Amino acid sequence: MAKPRIGVIGTGAIGGFYGVMLARAGYDVHFLLRSEYEAVKQNGITIDSMVHGELNLNPAQAYDDAAQMPACDWLLVGAKSTSNAALAPLIAKAAAPGARVVLLQNGLGNEDQLRDELPADLHLIGGLCYVCLYRKGPGVVVHQDNGMIDLAYHSGGADAQAQEQIIAEGAAMFREASLRAREQDNLDSARWQKLVWNAPFNGASVVLNAGTHALLANPASRQLIRDLMQEVVDAAEACGHPMPEALADKLLMGTQMIPDYLPSMHQDWQHKRPMELDNLYGEALRRAEQAGRPMPRIAALRDMLQFIQDGYQ
Amino acid sequence: MAKPRIGVIGTGAIGGFYGVMLARAGYDVHFLLRSEYEAVKQNGITIDSMVHGELNLNPAQAYDDAAQMPACDWLLVGAKSTSNAALAPLIAKAAAPGARVVLLQNGLGNEDQLRDELPADLHLIGGLCYVCLYRKGPGVVVHQDNGMIDLAYHSGGADAQAQEQIIAEGAAMFREASLRAREQDNLDSARWQKLVWNAPFNGASVVLNAGTHALLANPASRQLIRDLMQEVVDAAEACGHPMPEALADKLLMGTQMIPDYLPSMHQDWQHKRPMELDNLYGEALRRAEQAGRPMPRIAALRDMLQFIQDGYQ
Repeated sequence: MAKPRIGVIGTGAIGGFYGVMLARAGYDVHFLLRSEYEAVKQNGITIDSMVHGELNLNPAQAYDDAAQMPACDWLLVGAKSTSNAALAPLIAKAAAPGARVVLLQNGLGNEDQLRDELPADLHLIGGLCYVCLYRKGPGVVVHQDNGMIDLAYHSGGADAQAQEQIIAEGAAMFREASLRAREQDNLDSARWQKLVWNAPFNGASVVLNAGTHALLANPASRQLIRDLMQEVVDAAEACGHPMPEALADKLLMGTQMIPDYLPSMHQDWQHKRPMELDNLYGEALRRAEQAGRPMPRIAALRDMLQFIQDGYQ
Repeated sequence: MAKPRIGVIGTGAIGGFYGVMLARAGYDVHFLLRSEYEAVKQNGITIDSMVHGELNLNPAQAYDDAAQMPACDWLLVGAKSTSNAALAPLIAKAAAPGARVVLLQNGLGNEDQLRDELPADLHLIGGLCYVCLYRKGPGVVVHQDNGMIDLAYHSGGADAQAQEQIIAEGAAMFREASLRAREQDNLDSARWQKLVWNAPFNGASVVLNAGTHALLANPASRQLIRDLMQEVVDAAEACGHPMPEALADKLLMGTQMIPDYLPSMHQDWQHKRPMELDNLYGEALRRAEQAGRPMPRIAALRDMLQFIQDGYQ
């Protein structure tokens, strides 16, 4: 059986990294780009990895028009959730019938936003990337650590058994590319769990202009991060998603083990791009409120970030 | 009866403003200074007031050594609460027997910190200044608006009737200087009430590097300020201090009426001086926690400010 054909919709740091890893494992990977199309056509995509060394995929099968892409069996959506409204038509153009569409995005509620805009036969899957990387320049991504991905089925009409099989296929694909992959049976639980790290570190890195190591080294900001994490844990559990025991402390320990890292929201802020405020905060705050377990610290952080974003010159 | 003699301990923006206003009303006012002593000796003290025009007191009765000051009947303590440990000996040197010592400081618990260090015969009084001003240069204060002061007795052995009389005398003194003054019968209540404004605006002005108008004009930061205020209101009431109805909304409206203002903590931060974190936040957080009404947003704000202060170069 031939390997499935993979399309990357939105080739930023995340899409570039996973696409190159899969291409190196022998998959037929096609990249949709916008502003970086010319640079990638010329120099391919480079992953400057502290784990795997320098990986250069050249030529990369690059496109600046989704209509030119061949029909793909799997689509990895690496674009920010802030551009989700524009993504659905691109996905539909590049998708083979019954294609598996994996949203590699942060936050909550992303799949619900996209579902109604997508053809009914497409399987929508949540993909949660545990990876430290950032875009260094056109077609160049710095990979600092990790690369694990969680996959969980969202919607698309597959029955329980078929869902399990689709997720198993996806996980196997990433494992072939030397990446850890976990099959998750509840997408919401998986997204809440990732949010426990993402919501505190992304926002605090912007408001305090600091990376993970500085935030953990100072007792006050470490306490702040821990309190923010605990709020998300409590809200997740109130929403019916039991979290692993002592999750906040485990995440703090784990974050100290990885290199100093500036989360993606810090990158967005530095480049005055819209921050993922609604997907990282707004939806979670609404659900927590509904579940009777509001998150006042997270709300304060979100309000500060909104003020900062509204002040972009 | 001769007018009482007044000493100002710590002649910054606050001490300078009230001292000059009282001197203009005919009081015999003596100023203790440190770094600005020479400048004030030469040029006096100038209040560049948007309300009263330019007021210049020259010569000002200035001292760089409290032991040189004549014995004062009233002492106005304008130094930051961050330097309280060093203040008691200066106060004792300048005080006449049975002098009234008014702490013109922000926050909670300041008087308790000083009390044990002061001679028992001194009357300790809390003074809450509702005034917008900042120090522009040596001996020069810009006064933007207001100037009202609340006075409440703390300790010193006066019985209820004598307390009332002392506070009435103090209030009359400020009124003679064309300032509004209110006699408050519960110092803790008065301090909590002032904190409802101070805790949100001081901290947010630093974390978001913004003045009152910018913070109120943006819907997200306005909501943040309001939520922070409400936390303080709820904690004050849990601590047994009923607050005026709809206080947060009234303060928001009132703040829009005054000129754009950068609170004192912003001034401290800009000059990399220690911020009044314990008096503005720490003590209130401890009392709120004890009363079973914690303030998670205020705690998050305090932790951010501590991180920022710890990072001073």
